[in-house]
This record gives sequence, structure tokens and C-alpha cells, in this order.
Amino acid sequence: MRVDLNTDAGESFGAWALGDDAALFSYVTSVNVACGFHAGDPSVIRRTIRLAAAAGLCIGAHPGYPDLQGFGRRAMAVTPREVEDLVLYQVAALLGMTRAEGVRLAHVKPHGALYSQAARDPALASAIARAVASLDSRLVLVGLAGSSLIQAAADAGLPSAAEAFADRAYLADGSLAPRHLPGAVIHDGNIVARRALGIIRDHHVRSLDTDRDVPVRADTLCIHGDTPGAPELARTVRAALEGAGVRVLAREG
Amino acid sequence: MRVDLNTDAGESFGAWALGDDAALFSYVTSVNVACGFHAGDPSVIRRTIRLAAAAGLCIGAHPGYPDLQGFGRRAMAVTPREVEDLVLYQVAALLGMTRAEGVRLAHVKPHGALYSQAARDPALASAIARAVASLDSRLVLVGLAGSSLIQAAADAGLPSAAEAFADRAYLADGSLAPRHLPGAVIHDGNIVARRALGIIRDHHVRSLDTDRDVPVRADTLCIHGDTPGAPELARTVRAALEGAGVRVLAREG
Amino acid sequence: MRVDLNTDAGESFGAWALGDDAALFSYVTSVNVACGFHAGDPSVIRRTIRLAAAAGLCIGAHPGYPDLQGFGRRAMAVTPREVEDLVLYQVAALLGMTRAEGVRLAHVKPHGALYSQAARDPALASAIARAVASLDSRLVLVGLAGSSLIQAAADAGLPSAAEAFADRAYLADGSLAPRHLPGAVIHDGNIVARRALGIIRDHHVRSLDTDRDVPVRADTLCIHGDTPGAPELARTVRAALEGAGVRVLAREG
Amino acid sequence: MRVDLNTDAGESFGAWALGDDAALFSYVTSVNVACGFHAGDPSVIRRTIRLAAAAGLCIGAHPGYPDLQGFGRRAMAVTPREVEDLVLYQVAALLGMTRAEGVRLAHVKPHGALYSQAARDPALASAIARAVASLDSRLVLVGLAGSSLIQAAADAGLPSAAEAFADRAYLADGSLAPRHLPGAVIHDGNIVARRALGIIRDHHVRSLDTDRDVPVRADTLCIHGDTPGAPELARTVRAALEGAGVRVLAREG
Repeated sequence: MRVDLNTDAGESFGAWALGDDAALFSYVTSVNVACGFHAGDPSVIRRTIRLAAAAGLCIGAHPGYPDLQGFGRRAMAVTPREVEDLVLYQVAALLGMTRAEGVRLAHVKPHGALYSQAARDPALASAIARAVASLDSRLVLVGLAGSSLIQAAADAGLPSAAEAFADRAYLADGSLAPRHLPGAVIHDGNIVARRALGIIRDHHVRSLDTDRDVPVRADTLCIHGDTPGAPELARTVRAALEGAGVRVLAREG
Repeated sequence: MRVDLNTDAGESFGAWALGDDAALFSYVTSVNVACGFHAGDPSVIRRTIRLAAAAGLCIGAHPGYPDLQGFGRRAMAVTPREVEDLVLYQVAALLGMTRAEGVRLAHVKPHGALYSQAARDPALASAIARAVASLDSRLVLVGLAGSSLIQAAADAGLPSAAEAFADRAYLADGSLAPRHLPGAVIHDGNIVARRALGIIRDHHVRSLDTDRDVPVRADTLCIHGDTPGAPELARTVRAALEGAGVRVLAREG
Repeated sequence: MRVDLNTDAGESFGAWALGDDAALFSYVTSVNVACGFHAGDPSVIRRTIRLAAAAGLCIGAHPGYPDLQGFGRRAMAVTPREVEDLVLYQVAALLGMTRAEGVRLAHVKPHGALYSQAARDPALASAIARAVASLDSRLVLVGLAGSSLIQAAADAGLPSAAEAFADRAYLADGSLAPRHLPGAVIHDGNIVARRALGIIRDHHVRSLDTDRDVPVRADTLCIHGDTPGAPELARTVRAALEGAGVRVLAREG
Repeated sequence: MRVDLNTDAGESFGAWALGDDAALFSYVTSVNVACGFHAGDPSVIRRTIRLAAAAGLCIGAHPGYPDLQGFGRRAMAVTPREVEDLVLYQVAALLGMTRAEGVRLAHVKPHGALYSQAARDPALASAIARAVASLDSRLVLVGLAGSSLIQAAADAGLPSAAEAFADRAYLADGSLAPRHLPGAVIHDGNIVARRALGIIRDHHVRSLDTDRDVPVRADTLCIHGDTPGAPELARTVRAALEGAGVRVLAREG
């Protein structure tokens, strides 16, 4: 049993700080770096790459919609062509910036509404996969377990990693419960840890809308970094997993 | 006698079109593609790379200040560190996008106020050179002939190309006359052609503020594309140069 | 029989020009000024207000989504609260700027995707009406004839103007055919003029998807300004209407 | 003896929070609300106006350069015309939004680099004063004591308030020491309180670059809110002033 723990990072912008990247980096094994469209600016990105490299983490690009004010969380009616181009641009920027720092870009994980829309929409998913494959076909595409994005990676000849969320509620159909629903985001570290273990060891998680378990098979678990107490939660989850004999290490580890 | 003719391109943004890239591409030999900060968006950039590749042109990145409204033409009090990071980001994006299209990124030319400030300020010039060198030390840094940028390229071990402007007036000290001065921008194609020839064949150009000639040695001449009649002007300049026996071809040609 | 002819204007941004406002202003009676979120910047807005005032036109605000790159045409998953706030901000800016120029702000017409979403979504429509009413309850809310926005204006105690589009195809249910459908945008001035007359005199227009007429009752017709030939089209439509005895004048006229 | 204590507020943006406005509002008497160009978005602005109104504070607009990433702190080479238009737009937005909330906009204080440039440059100062006067000639223009902005207000027939900074070092010529100089920003609450008292009671403050006192006459003192411990510092300064018999109240009080 093994799992990668990933977190979104580099989500500050100019004078605005968000998240405690340095603290979180002690507990996760992979990091998704915001690329400047929904968060991050060139200086933040560079600083984040250096911090992640120093912590020995696996570094990925985290492209999102061009919507700073909405933090990339507002669904937008973009065409597959627009998505292909905006993912290409952002991942290309990260690819060059990691090389300039002497480290390797290992994966790509779409952010926010782009992630959610691509999970359900094969045309968007395939636009993302095309953009990534045109840059480097060894890049791992990270997407919601069982979603269109995982399928699109396979179709494009890209490796993929199936992601699950121990701190987000699932609906019975295997999708994530929208954030505005009561109970959609789980803050109690012990519950999150228990759910993480359920996903990795038992391959299922209790759904929000029914009493039934939803089957989930995941290569990587997301630890959200933009909430107070995120580092402590990451510590709790990692300790629970390792206490149960799960090896926590990046895909390449 | 030889010279490269370069033009800035990909300066449209979303619904807003600017310049007639396709027409200009018949007359120039190199193209500087806006990178999304002062102009250009991911879809415009990709389209421009494809158009330039189809025309067999030498393709470069044209990074600028993050100032869409001012088109990157307003000087900004940025630190060398900020400049290094924003050039790194933009050039990295173009480097990946050209590779994804199967073509090579050959050069980098800063845009607008970044170009002018770097011509005079060794710390900014050296920040730009550092960013470019960290991505690929074969990239040619294009800067104002005789300026700090050319010196910074040499210091960073980068090849450089000295640029002159046949359609912009020079001051006696060899700097470009600011755009707001009367006579700073020359629109008459025949005069521009004559000045181009003067620069390439005789290595000097008449100054705006005195009656004297300013010495200029240039590897490349800029043809501005954001004015009406730009393609016709480019045609006139090229014909005049070739008529006088100057070979017009890209650096690599 | 009377009708107002309105056009969107002030859609330039920084160095990017869009539309020939001065030419169009000879033929229309009302103008909707972009407010800086999807197009327009403070200098463009001010220039447009002055131009419209000099032409004696009725001036309105044209608020849109914060999406320069998509020109406000991409639907976004914004909450009613966000919409209320962003409309309030943009209309407030125009209200002050018109007063500073000594003219009156007469109406508000949402732009692009905001207009379309508000036509169908009562919660968004009512958020827009609330924002407008909180600024000045004499402002006329302009919306698609028969849509939620007209209803929301009535509920908020605001006057409204029902709008129809002579150059856009309608579906049988009275909605506008999406722009990407073949035949959705009509460019032939004579056909547009005939449809304009059909709407104002006969209160119906032929639908795109069936052979039947769609009933339409409109106070104002939109003349799109962002296409080549827009002024000529406006002239043709106005001549056809006046030739048939329709008085073309602004609501207050 | 009396003085107004003002603070900048509403400097959050989208998902990014900055400053603890609610806590600060217990100690200050006036608030300058960011207008969306360097910080603030329509929802943040509205929330801040409501919070300030509930606290009974005097509310002003705090317009800045269009530079989110630089937080409006990077000097830009803008023309007086551009400055006039961008101040007009931002103050107009705040004017409408305060009215919509049933409160009055009382003053305007430029932000960051716009404030500093206008302190020294009569043409920029006068562009700002013109924009404000064209909206409402009762608006108080707040500027650095003794600066061009105070003079421009007088020339434009606007009331003004002279501002001093107890937590910023002054140079011998009466200007603020640039932030990057060691000692330019003072964090110790007791020192700040002592300097505040020196400015209000004794009308001078010790300069950074010489041993001499700089004469300062101020109507209002700025309490910076974007640093940790700002509310505590505000409490200390206010207690020290009131303890020395200075009445702390807004201009209108």
C-alpha cells in the first residue's frame, strides 16, 4: 500500500499571501504550483519552485482559468481550443522555470473549475491532455479518479495519477459534492485521516447524499493548503496513513 | 552587407486585433512574439507562432511589463529581481509553445518601456540577460545598438544582436527620441528606406536634435507593425536595401 | 410607431481600437458605454461619453463580466451577490463620470454573457435590478424582450426597455440563437432592415429553427458596432424604418 | 489640539485577505477604501463600506494605479490625462457605492506610488484635484502635508487635509524616506505613539538622515493596516494622543 500526498501551492499573488507552503511541505510528497492565471505571479512561482526543490518534493504545474478575482473557481464557458491554449501556455511557463532552477517538472494538475469541468467534459479533458502531451509526453496528468481527465490522458498516451479528496464529501455518483453544500468540506483532521485511510486501504468513501460507500481508487490524495490549520491536518493524515502501514511517497519514489 | 529585418507581432488580445501580421511576414526575416503581459493571449501567441513558422521566419519572444492598458509602454519602477522573474516566465512560456509547434525559439527582445529602461539601466539589463541565460544560453538577446542590454548579453555569455530603428528619430547621444517629441516617429516610407540604407551601409543616421550624424552599427532593423501602412513600408525598406546590394536575411540565414 | 436604436460603444481598450463609434453615432439614438470590465478603460469611457454627449445621444452603462480576454462573452458561474456587486461598481463609475461631464446617465444594459444569463436566470436578473435601483430608481433597465430581466425591473420598481435584435436570429422559443450556429448573425443590411421593420411594425420575426414567426414587442433595437460595415448597416436600418413611417428616437425623445 | 486617525482598508482581493479591518476600525476615525485598481474588488469594497458605516467612520476613496501585482506601489510613467481619468473612474465608483449604502463619501486619498508621485509632481497633483472637483467639490483631498497635492486642492477649490505618518521615517527635506531604506518603517508602537504626539503637539518629527527635526503640520495621521499588529499599534497611538489631551476625531466631528 502506497500513496502520494499532494498539495496546491504558490497561491500567493503580489502583496497577498495565501497558505503556509513552507509548513505544509514537511508533510506532502508532491506539490502543484499555481501558474499565474488564477493565482501566483512570476516571483511567487519561482520562490515556490525553489522551496519545493529544497524540500525534495515532486513538482507539478497547476494551470487554471484566467480569473484572479474568482481564484479560478468559477466555471467558465471556454472552448476546448481556448483551454488547450491556456493550459499549453501555463505549463510551458512552469516547464521552463523548473528547468531554469535545475529541477524537473513531473506532473500537471488542472485547478478549480477547470479541474471540475474537465472531470465531466471529455472535450475539455482531451484539450488539456493534448496541450500537456505536446510539451512532454512523460508529464503525469493528475485528475479526479474515474473521471474524463484520466481517460483523456490514456487516449493521449500520457501517464496519469488518479486523485481523491479525503477532506471533501463525495456524492453517490462518485463526483465531489459542490463546495456550497453543507458538509462538502471536512475540517476535522481525525475524520479526514479516517477517510484517507478508507480510500487508500479499503478503496471506498462514505457518500454525502446516501448512506452508501462510493468506490474510489486513488494514486494521490489532495491536502488543501488554503485553510487555517492545513499543516496540522496534513501531519495528522500522514501519521494515520503511515501508522496503518501505508507508504507515503511521490509517484517516482 | 547583410541585415535582419524584425517586427513585433502577436499584439492582438482577445477580441481586439492589432497589426496585419500575415502581410508583414512577407517582408521581414524575424518576428518578436508578444508573450501575454503587455499584449497577446495564449491563443494569439499560438496562432502567431504557426503563422511565423509557415512563413519560415526566425521566431523570438517579446516579453513586456504586466500592463495591458498601457501596452507595456509606460515605464514602471520594478526591481531587477521582478524583471528577472517576469522575463523568465514569459520567455519560458514561448520556449515551450514553440517546441510544442515543432519550431525553435531563436531570440528574445524586450518590449516597450522594458526595452528602453534596460537600454539605460545595467541592473535591469543584467536581470534580463540572467533570465534568458538560465533558460537557454543559445538564445540571442536583441537590444538597442550600443546599449546596456548588449553589454549585459556579453557579460552573461549570451549572443546578442544590435538593433536600430529606421523609422524612429535618434538623439545626438545615440538614444531614441521619445515618442511624444515632434518628428520622433517617421511615417514616410522613402525616408525610412533611406535611413535604413544609411544605417546598414554607412553606419550612421542623422540626429533629431542636432545637424550631426549619429554612428550606429546594427545587425537588425525593426519594422513597426502597429501602424497603418506597415506592410507597404516594410516592402519599401526591403526593396531599397536589396536594390543597394544588402542581403536581407535572418541571423541564422 | 416609434423605436429607439441603440448601440454598444466605448469597446476599445488601451492601444486596441474597436468599432467606429463616431460614424455609428450619426444613426443611433442611444448608446451603451462599456464600463471597464469586459472592455473600455477610464480614458476610453470618458472619450465615449463626450462623443455621445456631443451627438445628443441618450447615454447608458453597459456593465459586463470581469473577462477582458473573453470580451465578457463567456458565461461564468457567478453568484447573484457577485453580480449585484460588479454591476453596482460599474454603473456607479459611469453615473459619476457622466455627471462629471454634465450629462445624465439614462439607462443600464448588461453586456454579453451577463445579458444572456440574466435573460434566463431570475436570480441574476433580480441582482442586476437591485444594483441599479440602489443607485437611481429612474435608470431604465434594458433587457431582452420578454426575458427575466424585464420582469426583474418591474419587481424592483425600475422602468425598463424591451430590446430586440434585427441582426441576430431567434429560436422558436423567443431566445437568441447562439452565435456559433450558422445563420445566427445576419450581415446583409437589407435583410436586417426588413427584420427590423417586421419587429417594430408587425411585432414578429421569423425563427431560425422553424418556419414560424416568433412574436416580439420591442422598445429598442440593437445595432452591433463591432463588425465592419456597422455604420452603413445602421444607416440602412434607420432609413428603412423612417421610410415606413417609424419615428426613430430615444426613449425620452 | 485635535487630529483625525485614518487607515487604508478594503485591501483584500477575491480569495486573498489583507489586514484586519474590523479590529482597526475600533481605533481610527477615517477610512480610505481601495477602489479595485491596486486592491479591492466590488464585493470587498461594498463589505468595507458597510463595515465602516457601522463603525461610524468617515469614509473616503483610495484610488491607485492599475497594478494589482505591485499593489499600486510601483511608480508608473502615466500622463496627467491618464491619471485624471483613472482617478475619476475609481472615485466615481466609490461615490455611487457609498450612496447606494446610504452613506456619504467624504474624502479622497491617492494610494501608494500615485500618492508619492502626486506629492512631488504638480501636473499629476492637479490632474487628481481636477478629477475629484469634477465629481463633488466638497470632497476633501488628503495628501502629504506640505506637498503638491495640498497646493493642487487649493488651486481647484477643494478642501484638503494634510497627512503625516508617525510610523514612517522622514528625510530632512520633509519627504518620506523610501520604504527600502533601513529604518524607513517603524514598527515599535511606543516609538510611533511618541512620534505621533510630536507631530500633533509640537509640529515636528526627527529626520532619518540628519539629527534635526523636520517641521510637520498635519490634520490627519495615517495608521497602516497591512502589517501584523496594526490594531494594537493603532490602540497605542490613540491612547497616547488622548492621554496627552489630543481630541481624536474625524474632520467633520
